[in-house]
Amino acid sequence: MHGPGLLTFTTDFGTRDHYAGAMKGVVATVAPDVRVVDITHDVPSFDIAAGAFAIAQAYPCFPEGTVHVVVVDPGVGSSRRPIAVQAGGHLFICPDNGVLSLVAESADVFKARLIRLRHGLAALSRTFHGRDLFAPVGARLAAGLPFEEVGPEVADFTLLPATNPANSAGRILYVDGYGNLVTSIRERDLPVGACLAIAGTRICLRAESYASVPSDRLFLIAGSSGFVEISLNRGSAANALGVRAGEHLVIASERKEPIVASAQSAKDIM
Amino acid sequence: MHGPGLLTFTTDFGTRDHYAGAMKGVVATVAPDVRVVDITHDVPSFDIAAGAFAIAQAYPCFPEGTVHVVVVDPGVGSSRRPIAVQAGGHLFICPDNGVLSLVAESADVFKARLIRLRHGLAALSRTFHGRDLFAPVGARLAAGLPFEEVGPEVADFTLLPATNPANSAGRILYVDGYGNLVTSIRERDLPVGACLAIAGTRICLRAESYASVPSDRLFLIAGSSGFVEISLNRGSAANALGVRAGEHLVIASERKEPIVASAQSAKDIM
Amino acid sequence: MHGPGLLTFTTDFGTRDHYAGAMKGVVATVAPDVRVVDITHDVPSFDIAAGAFAIAQAYPCFPEGTVHVVVVDPGVGSSRRPIAVQAGGHLFICPDNGVLSLVAESADVFKARLIRLRHGLAALSRTFHGRDLFAPVGARLAAGLPFEEVGPEVADFTLLPATNPANSAGRILYVDGYGNLVTSIRERDLPVGACLAIAGTRICLRAESYASVPSDRLFLIAGSSGFVEISLNRGSAANALGVRAGEHLVIASERKEPIVASAQSAKDIM
Repeated sequence: MHGPGLLTFTTDFGTRDHYAGAMKGVVATVAPDVRVVDITHDVPSFDIAAGAFAIAQAYPCFPEGTVHVVVVDPGVGSSRRPIAVQAGGHLFICPDNGVLSLVAESADVFKARLIRLRHGLAALSRTFHGRDLFAPVGARLAAGLPFEEVGPEVADFTLLPATNPANSAGRILYVDGYGNLVTSIRERDLPVGACLAIAGTRICLRAESYASVPSDRLFLIAGSSGFVEISLNRGSAANALGVRAGEHLVIASERKEPIVASAQSAKDIM
Repeated sequence: MHGPGLLTFTTDFGTRDHYAGAMKGVVATVAPDVRVVDITHDVPSFDIAAGAFAIAQAYPCFPEGTVHVVVVDPGVGSSRRPIAVQAGGHLFICPDNGVLSLVAESADVFKARLIRLRHGLAALSRTFHGRDLFAPVGARLAAGLPFEEVGPEVADFTLLPATNPANSAGRILYVDGYGNLVTSIRERDLPVGACLAIAGTRICLRAESYASVPSDRLFLIAGSSGFVEISLNRGSAANALGVRAGEHLVIASERKEPIVASAQSAKDIM
Repeated sequence: MHGPGLLTFTTDFGTRDHYAGAMKGVVATVAPDVRVVDITHDVPSFDIAAGAFAIAQAYPCFPEGTVHVVVVDPGVGSSRRPIAVQAGGHLFICPDNGVLSLVAESADVFKARLIRLRHGLAALSRTFHGRDLFAPVGARLAAGLPFEEVGPEVADFTLLPATNPANSAGRILYVDGYGNLVTSIRERDLPVGACLAIAGTRICLRAESYASVPSDRLFLIAGSSGFVEISLNRGSAANALGVRAGEHLVIASERKEPIVASAQSAKDIM
């Protein structure tokens, strides 16, 4: 199985330096007919969880067989393994550091293989495996290299801690560029009338669109991600609440009982 | 009439999140042969006027028949209408919120149609019509869907207030990333010897190039936009004057009369 | 000699404005079959040396015959000349301001030609030669225009000061987005056991990977650029040392003699 010759990039390399351009040059050299699409090069530096969210959200929009090169790689040059993964009808190339955790949660098949270094460029630098290994291997796969030839199977790949420890508890999966807080609560798991409580604040208002809510009221909305998001119309919910990715939240009732024992810091922006 | 299979994006989604990548994935899925070009994803958030400027400046550089997907959409999910527009030999897909106002000013034909939701993806989220509606409709048009089949005609589309209320007055249309102030005054409408007065300052010096002026003097230059721009060599005219998009200016004589009654704040950086 | 129809962009135009998009539109109009790849549009504004580093690093990754349009052009509209260059099997289009200095250092052939304005668009603006001249000329070259027809030969092109004045001294060539300091010292020129001294600090520790070093210790690493880099694991060496591109450094012994006479400010983060 191989794709329509489409390859995507998801990295934390930024666009200021030549790094993203160098990888595209390698693809154009190794496999001139492969088309390249950037998902993003602006994953926050070293933020594996943010990269995991971006690729999990974006890959299902692409045609089956697309090859996704995902490089958020603080361990470059160390003993962390380079892997190729088959999941959800797509192929992924990445360091084995958990960056595919959310892809693994959503896909029923997840087969990983160790990447043999001979599929990369002749010279492997210590600091830029995106250029020297991940891009050329992705290009070869997009050009028809069978997945089985990448290298031996790997069974014990790395996963980040699961997103949802208990039914009534969750956390902020991701904060987007607008300041919307993407929670780990799926829309179907939030009962009618229930609220989300986070940072001493209980948010109960549900909205059908951003524009339908005055700009000073936090609200819940069924996000495009499939998860409930906490938002502010034309404003940043992240700044209003002062929370970041990873922070915990609970599903709470609408009655105004204290959310936590020490309700001192409770704000009521509902 | 349909194009050479070229589709552009102009949005305020930024490049940090997966949003732009998801839209490109949709295009690759719906119409694999369509080529995608980013004009910008970094329109300032919710700034419809800035988006209007970007697309009006960029579209004439593309071949006729190109499809331009323009999504600066603070009203996503509300009652604002999704429209497709034929203008200047190009096609545009956008929310009906005025983001094509400057395209409408420059094009002699401007035909709008309401987009039927069935041309979008099967599931329409409340917050991401770029992915679920605008991108797939743009892809279908770029792949050959006749414009007439998009939906019924719309006569009362939204326009932002006209750029130039009086002959002797104008405003700042756009502030670019360097801090150049693009005014609404066309080069041909600025008499020889006339100045522009803004923020208590009269700017009279005209330059043929940025580099020909000392870096502490504001000057007027015929910008690449066709409008007169207020600039500073290797500096930000916006910061020097403390002005933003939308601010008013007047065409003034070169004689140093007070620009306004309260000339207290007048600076003389000429 | 002409290429596989591939054209890259390296500019300081940023991605917020329509400038990069307009150039891509021109390429699509002039030469519809040419494929466009962005190396970066985020070279720091007017920073010719940073642009020189980016293009020198990225171009060897692309197939021979690729056309690279490089526009960091503070002198646009002044008397600086537009040139086309043949070097290292690639073609380059740029203002003659030294932005190809590092390409020239690495390539054995370097032939420059003055660009005749008739190869650009009919109307040449004063401020945007990227759109009106460099992009269309690049597109024509990528589509097959012979290099010899661009214009007459130029022998006296501009070069920035050489990177390495003496064997034991060097400087910071580039600071990347992570804050890694790329020095002008090639790995082979740094003796075993030697240190780099900069900003009153002597750095001697050598690492094989970022992750192998505690995050509070500066170290030297063989960078992907071929040069020695000064780095900090998950941190910014530039911020830790307070240095910027251009700053001088020396190769020093490991013995802890004072680096400079006034060793007052010496820190010992080794």
